[in-house]
Amino acid sequence: MNKLVRNGLEPVPFTKVTIEDHFWAPRIRINREHTIPFQYQKCKETGRIDAFKLNWKPGMEPVPHIFWDSDVAKWIEAASYSLATHPDHDLERLLDEVIDLVASAQQPDGYLNIYFTVVEPEKRWTDLRDAHELYCAGHLIEAGVAHYAATGKRKLLDVVCRYADYIDTVFGPEENKKKGYCGHPEIELALVKLYRVTGEERYLKLSKFFVDERGKEPNYFEEEKKKYGPGYFEELFKTFGNLKEYNQSHKPVREQDKAVGHAVRAMYLYCAMADLAKETGDESLKIACERLWENVHKKNMYITGGIGSTAKHEGFTFDYDLPNETAYAETCAAIGLVFWNHRMLQLDCSGKYADALERALYNGVISGISLDGTKFFYENPLASLGNVHRKEWFDVSCCPPNLARLLASLGQYIYSQNEKEVAVHLYIQGSVNLDIQGKSILLKQKTNYPWDGNILIDLEMEQPSTFALKLRIPGWARQATVKINGEVFDIKQHLEKNYVKIERKWNNHDQVELVFPMPIERVYTNPNVRYNRNCVAIQRGPLVYCLEGADNPEPLYRISLPKNEVLHSHFDEQLLGGVVKITGKAVFYNDFDWDGELYRTSLPAPQQFEFTAIPYYAWDNRKPGQMLVWIPEI
Amino acid sequence: MNKLVRNGLEPVPFTKVTIEDHFWAPRIRINREHTIPFQYQKCKETGRIDAFKLNWKPGMEPVPHIFWDSDVAKWIEAASYSLATHPDHDLERLLDEVIDLVASAQQPDGYLNIYFTVVEPEKRWTDLRDAHELYCAGHLIEAGVAHYAATGKRKLLDVVCRYADYIDTVFGPEENKKKGYCGHPEIELALVKLYRVTGEERYLKLSKFFVDERGKEPNYFEEEKKKYGPGYFEELFKTFGNLKEYNQSHKPVREQDKAVGHAVRAMYLYCAMADLAKETGDESLKIACERLWENVHKKNMYITGGIGSTAKHEGFTFDYDLPNETAYAETCAAIGLVFWNHRMLQLDCSGKYADALERALYNGVISGISLDGTKFFYENPLASLGNVHRKEWFDVSCCPPNLARLLASLGQYIYSQNEKEVAVHLYIQGSVNLDIQGKSILLKQKTNYPWDGNILIDLEMEQPSTFALKLRIPGWARQATVKINGEVFDIKQHLEKNYVKIERKWNNHDQVELVFPMPIERVYTNPNVRYNRNCVAIQRGPLVYCLEGADNPEPLYRISLPKNEVLHSHFDEQLLGGVVKITGKAVFYNDFDWDGELYRTSLPAPQQFEFTAIPYYAWDNRKPGQMLVWIPEI
Ligand SMILES: [Zn+2]
Ligand SMILES: [Zn+2]
Repeated sequence: MNKLVRNGLEPVPFTKVTIEDHFWAPRIRINREHTIPFQYQKCKETGRIDAFKLNWKPGMEPVPHIFWDSDVAKWIEAASYSLATHPDHDLERLLDEVIDLVASAQQPDGYLNIYFTVVEPEKRWTDLRDAHELYCAGHLIEAGVAHYAATGKRKLLDVVCRYADYIDTVFGPEENKKKGYCGHPEIELALVKLYRVTGEERYLKLSKFFVDERGKEPNYFEEEKKKYGPGYFEELFKTFGNLKEYNQSHKPVREQDKAVGHAVRAMYLYCAMADLAKETGDESLKIACERLWENVHKKNMYITGGIGSTAKHEGFTFDYDLPNETAYAETCAAIGLVFWNHRMLQLDCSGKYADALERALYNGVISGISLDGTKFFYENPLASLGNVHRKEWFDVSCCPPNLARLLASLGQYIYSQNEKEVAVHLYIQGSVNLDIQGKSILLKQKTNYPWDGNILIDLEMEQPSTFALKLRIPGWARQATVKINGEVFDIKQHLEKNYVKIERKWNNHDQVELVFPMPIERVYTNPNVRYNRNCVAIQRGPLVYCLEGADNPEPLYRISLPKNEVLHSHFDEQLLGGVVKITGKAVFYNDFDWDGELYRTSLPAPQQFEFTAIPYYAWDNRKPGQMLVWIPEI
Repeated sequence: MNKLVRNGLEPVPFTKVTIEDHFWAPRIRINREHTIPFQYQKCKETGRIDAFKLNWKPGMEPVPHIFWDSDVAKWIEAASYSLATHPDHDLERLLDEVIDLVASAQQPDGYLNIYFTVVEPEKRWTDLRDAHELYCAGHLIEAGVAHYAATGKRKLLDVVCRYADYIDTVFGPEENKKKGYCGHPEIELALVKLYRVTGEERYLKLSKFFVDERGKEPNYFEEEKKKYGPGYFEELFKTFGNLKEYNQSHKPVREQDKAVGHAVRAMYLYCAMADLAKETGDESLKIACERLWENVHKKNMYITGGIGSTAKHEGFTFDYDLPNETAYAETCAAIGLVFWNHRMLQLDCSGKYADALERALYNGVISGISLDGTKFFYENPLASLGNVHRKEWFDVSCCPPNLARLLASLGQYIYSQNEKEVAVHLYIQGSVNLDIQGKSILLKQKTNYPWDGNILIDLEMEQPSTFALKLRIPGWARQATVKINGEVFDIKQHLEKNYVKIERKWNNHDQVELVFPMPIERVYTNPNVRYNRNCVAIQRGPLVYCLEGADNPEPLYRISLPKNEVLHSHFDEQLLGGVVKITGKAVFYNDFDWDGELYRTSLPAPQQFEFTAIPYYAWDNRKPGQMLVWIPEI
């Protein structure tokens, strides 16, 4: 109990949460019924599953890839989460099968990695920079933790504990151990999860070791290269400029203040830093996270919550460099942003973290998956000439199972609590079973969010209970009102970091009514972002909108939005599974007045038309066409 | 004589032209006094000159590069042109020395190429796609022709004739000869020059053979690769998409209608097509050129005359794809555009060709060289964040000597003539010695072009002479007036493809006065160019303007130009060697109202300031800073 109080809030696990709305519940159902089985199929047919049989021999095709273990691990994680909320015998049996197979690949010393067991066994631990060896271990550990939490079965958990124990004999501060860490952070956050579920301090210590070693000089990866020669991606990495920044080993993590390099790597590292700050009370890690948070969110984040501007190194470039057409904004990076903000939120219940989490979740994360749950974006640009479409799978297929595990465990992002407080971060219809000071309380949300901002919270309990209910006032909700049992509650007097804190003795069937008016908003970008000069984006509630070719004349880049046009919103249940669309008058610059000329000294007047904007996440679910978020405003 | 009449106009050689103005004459002097000696020095110190000694042995550094011959050849060409208008004993002796050295490298069979003589002698003619072998030959031929024309000395001409004769034994339609052609067109136009100076029909035939073979199926380069294995740039070229388009071998040239691939290659090919159309009267080549001209100039050309949008393959992408910051717009490509338009102009005396030539010349070509003549741009973007600066030399150093040879022979672009007509394409103060029907006529231009548009033409002759004087009315000159000996001449009645044709008996000291009012113009881009949405460029006369950090608050991308602000022009003799600068009121979007936020629902009002624009060509000649051509207009 003590730790909870000391360390702020804990997320309420998704197993205690139900989601019963029209927005997320269908997505979670599709994830369960289509995405998870579909991804198993893809893992199976591409050889990822069978690779754990370890019967690959030189000359055979395909050669197991260094990332493969992680794809299967994320699938196990997703399937486990799904099982936890929706028992399914077939899926459970299939999971057991896959887990048996994974377990069978474990070596006598505890080691468990396909590539370095069958393809290059002599190179174990010699290419930490490129080969994703500890990264794959991290995902296996997350899978083991998830499966145990979902089913109570220890098989995979025991396997990954043995693996982690073995890793602990290889890496560490002791003289005979390697001082290395993974080029792709991931195991650090996984070890904290393993520590939390097992209580074994040495996993926490190992995580801290990896995080603390990162960025020390002499640089481990440079020494490694001297000792073992060029890494797996040597040729590719030669084109990357600063490789130490690429994998965030350019400085000790506590000195980092600008998000650099590969965006997913950065997010997973920052997650681990936040985890360690929470578990060890290390203020310096929290401060580093806060500094990096400012840099990411105020200088390097798309309005969709996407991060990582360039495809080149899948990552950050320089501050305010946010091109739209060529935005990389990898789905995994937006998911990583959700993970990180979720952790920050437990350290410090501040609306800015929940706002960022919500921004990514409703825009740049779920844009990554088609409405039918079987096609995925790797990159999530904010403008398209019509050639960008989701795919069923990728050679490097990190994003699809990352989406699956996020959706299957979505419930965990909604609430946090400790013994004195319950925080509501997201407004999603459904309920949560809370346990406060030993008493069971059922909190129910009734809302049509994100289509409108009216939320009714109903509390059911056997006896009255005293605690603070902290309700997030979203950053976009500029005219929020709160009523308790029909009586207006003064928000301003009780606002803590954008959460309205209602501390009282609650009675059974007390009701809190939140009203967040959801006007259509025109959003502008800081003038340091040169790509969005004189452009506007449309946002309503948490949703960013876009123009799509299916609704508007192409090419979309010939459209401008007059400053003073009134915009209208309207729920269209036929459209894209039911969305609020936004309409209004825009103008289109024709080219037929131009006589084919390229440059002229007069600009023909544009033509008015009625435009339709749809939520960004829903684009590319109809006929292929162009897309545009930032619209020139005239 | 007959041919002249049949084939339109002939350029008046630069040896008959003097340039005595304040714009070009100083540039030509700097070219002579600084650029040409400086480039010799660079060729010398990098080993390019001495490589012709052929004493390279495996293991020695540097290894002669496959392009090196062409750099020296272009330097010889530039130095020869310079010599032709400005005798200089030291330069002449140096040229003789270099030419002796080049000649000494010729093999007994006539072959002359450094790389394939000393580095990979066994690979002669096995990598036409990549190795620039015929390209280097072409530049040597141009050098030989130039040196002979400038000095009357036959040494290098004889060398290149022997080389061309040898090449003619290797390539051709006969069964025992190769059906190949160069990956980089150049020799085709060079052979036409060689034909013109020697009268040897077989050089014309060989040029025609190369042009006609190009793009036939099966593709020569594909067959070559099957036979001899991967080319010199195999790895790089793997990243290029369509390699046949890259080197314009995707279709027979007469079927090509979209400019594709490497921009310099395209220009040199189109030059040869125009040359052959002129020399052989082949209408189909002229038609292909006209079709390609439309595509280049109306869908793929920057307002500066730059072409080739992407650094990736140094070339064209898709129609209307004209990004500014990442524009490649290689200096050589703009020079190639000048070459091509100059040739088109002799086929068809249409203002559109001279307009394009002038646009490139005054903007995207001379932007390539610093005001002091010793630093060069390879790429000529239309916007810079401050990190783009000219360099003294490049590993691949095609652009610097290309500028040198263009400037040293600039006089040839001003006039054309035949027995009945004299055309004035460019307005540059100076004179030309014309020979019309055996009579000598001196045409003098007095003008302050490009700073104003008043031109006084004075004709001196011993006896009256009847011919048509065709004076170009620039596309930008919308209010042109012409007076003959003080009397207004009706332009509209006598306009032929934007040339006013004055056909009369001319007397000694007849004067023609042209007045082209030169207002500051706001130029807009066809709405298909998505990068310039709601942006404006400033142009005055032939000059495109830009904002530069030295005169304006940075970052420049925070500047917008209000639609209705009046702009002012003013000649500033202290500025950048003397330029007309343009000033007016613009606005600057500050970021200090933003509290560090990235996205907001209101846009703070910008601040007014007085901006200064300078000619685009002159940028990056002061302290390093940002640059912007296309300014958002509000
Ligand atoms: Zn991914
Ligand atoms: Zn060049």
